[in-house]
Amino acid sequence: MADQKPQISFIGLGAMGFGMATHLLKRGYNVTGFDVWAPTLEKFRAAGGQTATTPSEAVADKPYCVCMVATAAQAHSVLFDHKAVDYLPQGAVLLLCSTVPCEYVQSLEKQLVGYGRSDILLVDSPVSGGVARAADGTLSIMAGMSSAALEKARFLLEELADPAKLYIVEGGIGSGSNMKMVHQVLAACQILSSSEAMGFADHLGLDLGKTIEAVNKSEDAWNWMFEHRTPRMLTEYKPIASAVNIIIKDTGIITAEGRKAQFPTLMTSTAEQVYFAGVGRGFGPDDDSSLIRLYNEGKGNFKGLAEREEDKIQLVLDLLRGITLCAAAEALAFAHAVGLDLDQVYELCINAAGGSKALQKFGPEIIKAYKEGSAAQGWNVAEAGVGLKEVANKLQAAVEEAQRVKAPVFLGGQALNIIRLALRSGGDGLAAGAVVKVWAAAN
Amino acid sequence: MADQKPQISFIGLGAMGFGMATHLLKRGYNVTGFDVWAPTLEKFRAAGGQTATTPSEAVADKPYCVCMVATAAQAHSVLFDHKAVDYLPQGAVLLLCSTVPCEYVQSLEKQLVGYGRSDILLVDSPVSGGVARAADGTLSIMAGMSSAALEKARFLLEELADPAKLYIVEGGIGSGSNMKMVHQVLAACQILSSSEAMGFADHLGLDLGKTIEAVNKSEDAWNWMFEHRTPRMLTEYKPIASAVNIIIKDTGIITAEGRKAQFPTLMTSTAEQVYFAGVGRGFGPDDDSSLIRLYNEGKGNFKGLAEREEDKIQLVLDLLRGITLCAAAEALAFAHAVGLDLDQVYELCINAAGGSKALQKFGPEIIKAYKEGSAAQGWNVAEAGVGLKEVANKLQAAVEEAQRVKAPVFLGGQALNIIRLALRSGGDGLAAGAVVKVWAAAN
Repeated sequence: MADQKPQISFIGLGAMGFGMATHLLKRGYNVTGFDVWAPTLEKFRAAGGQTATTPSEAVADKPYCVCMVATAAQAHSVLFDHKAVDYLPQGAVLLLCSTVPCEYVQSLEKQLVGYGRSDILLVDSPVSGGVARAADGTLSIMAGMSSAALEKARFLLEELADPAKLYIVEGGIGSGSNMKMVHQVLAACQILSSSEAMGFADHLGLDLGKTIEAVNKSEDAWNWMFEHRTPRMLTEYKPIASAVNIIIKDTGIITAEGRKAQFPTLMTSTAEQVYFAGVGRGFGPDDDSSLIRLYNEGKGNFKGLAEREEDKIQLVLDLLRGITLCAAAEALAFAHAVGLDLDQVYELCINAAGGSKALQKFGPEIIKAYKEGSAAQGWNVAEAGVGLKEVANKLQAAVEEAQRVKAPVFLGGQALNIIRLALRSGGDGLAAGAVVKVWAAAN
Repeated sequence: MADQKPQISFIGLGAMGFGMATHLLKRGYNVTGFDVWAPTLEKFRAAGGQTATTPSEAVADKPYCVCMVATAAQAHSVLFDHKAVDYLPQGAVLLLCSTVPCEYVQSLEKQLVGYGRSDILLVDSPVSGGVARAADGTLSIMAGMSSAALEKARFLLEELADPAKLYIVEGGIGSGSNMKMVHQVLAACQILSSSEAMGFADHLGLDLGKTIEAVNKSEDAWNWMFEHRTPRMLTEYKPIASAVNIIIKDTGIITAEGRKAQFPTLMTSTAEQVYFAGVGRGFGPDDDSSLIRLYNEGKGNFKGLAEREEDKIQLVLDLLRGITLCAAAEALAFAHAVGLDLDQVYELCINAAGGSKALQKFGPEIIKAYKEGSAAQGWNVAEAGVGLKEVANKLQAAVEEAQRVKAPVFLGGQALNIIRLALRSGGDGLAAGAVVKVWAAAN
């Protein structure tokens, strides 16, 4: 039945794009790929794909186009500088799967209209899940679009996504990108927190393998990024699964959109500065797990108070709990600020790379508070909940030990101060989720 | 008349202590010095001093003792492990001039009583001003003590201090150390901001000499640390005037006392993490101006938007204004939290190494708000004042340009988010000083 499936053009055959495009080949589609890097095109032909030498040639006469380039600037270049827009057939469906600012994809929608191509059905559909899931067709996809576009694009989104992880986001073009941006708040903070926690463990003289194991089976500290990043810290940051330069791009989208919305991205901004420090050191092309190198320098020169291995591991767990709680609060507060449905944000993030035990445990109380309009005030410890003061005290013990051993804990120090701000304005009886008060302060 | 002046013992002949002790020699006192480093004792003898081989020998029979060791742990070791306390004569005056936590000097007072030496007149008198002023007897000194101790110690404080810069701090033992701690909030943030601003300038391709000149003559961006640190950035961080390891010690006192008081030291904690990163790189013994090395790595690899030299310099000025405003607000809020007199804090800091144009310009409105009890609420732009929104927008332009050139701006990014927090809870009509709302939030 392959010949009955529609022809698809695929622009951008990087690690993710190549996986997605070859998955479509396996599913029997006729896919014409384009990439600026010639060896990739050869590889794609070897996998059974067609290739084109220009974006225009690739998209010409194909009713579907998937664009998976790295940046908004590249997307613009493909569509307008290389005039792919002129070659897309009437009524073509254009899936923009790159991670771009909400503002960009909204402006693209307007540009298409201004260009006389309002017939093109644009789909704002960034993805998450990594290379393996791209190649499996089991990505998380968050897609915002018109109902007309959804009708024509749904089968293609379903081919690329895990059925349980295809999220149609209300709000049209821009909403998919906003959802991805919110997810990346968790990604940006949690990728770096893996290096911060492991660098701290290294300063404490812990065995890194044992530390990883303890975090992975922990009640509160686990997060998806930690589980997936830390093994590469034991293999000299190889293979390169996701480069520092990739997460820095997404981080920049978050902080820039935050500034536009006058939303204080306290955690993500902190992460961003450390990422810049890493780029300055020349670590940009390296796997992002390699940023532990910014954290474990000088280890062993100063002695802390903790003696027993289990006490030291507990400090690492408490550091991670504090950071992931604040990352979850920042993500949900930002999602609220840009008008996303918090239940959908939660469901998406908890099942994707942004997932964490802290989000799972404390997210629901934060979402409930937003729904009840009480995120900025109120907040008592829920019956079964964890108190914010307890989180603060445990995190404080970790930050103090880090101070003794002179380990930098950029995110942990920031999380502690954020929690202190929340406690100052609310007293000791607050539930852990109440840290969101800091972001939710009434205007 | 020299033989009529009382005998003084001097414990701790480091850079500062040596200057202070030799100044007392020049003023005709008979000074017996002790230090753990033998070559220093030789030098002190060459300068006309007496020396002792143990702390006990140094203090025996001397009615005055000045202790200028580096840390509280060293002071404790001198007094109790080496039993200097046993040898101090009845009614001796003990000036503790080291920078130590308030808590330590208060516990020392109690220990002396517990030890049966309530006759010793303890003076909590940390100093500021650097080596040159130490040797000139023109230090800033902030001294808290009983009135009996003040009566006997005043002449000695006056010998060591500039007459206009001797501050008797109300509140007894601990108040001097608290005053120093608050001053060091400014020092810790502004020392690092010099590296941050100059690293940013370097990323922008600015001539560093011209940048220094522009900041030094600026209306808003100048601060004492910048003026005194940056020349050494042009001479390979030589001579070593004040090591990273020194400011890191004071920074640790601030953040630890902040945690005890549950006061969020948002700016100082950020600075502390960067200091730890510097120590990890092995920069601890180097001059603190050398931390520009953490900020200018990778410069020139990414292009910003600003083209004209004057525009680039303005971005650097705006970065510094934002940081120094937030440092001033954190210092004053912390001073309020520990019960210091804000007018005295202001007068001391503005005339010491913590001085900045931002403190001079915006400090008075913050102090006025605290006096009126309206620091947490209220806040309209004063007639002649600068609006917080304007500060935010200019700082934001600097942070955005830093993002483009991938220059880390740890303090600038933090300051922007703090200002955004204040603006969210107060609207656009706020005066610049209203940023203090973030710290002053009602409990």
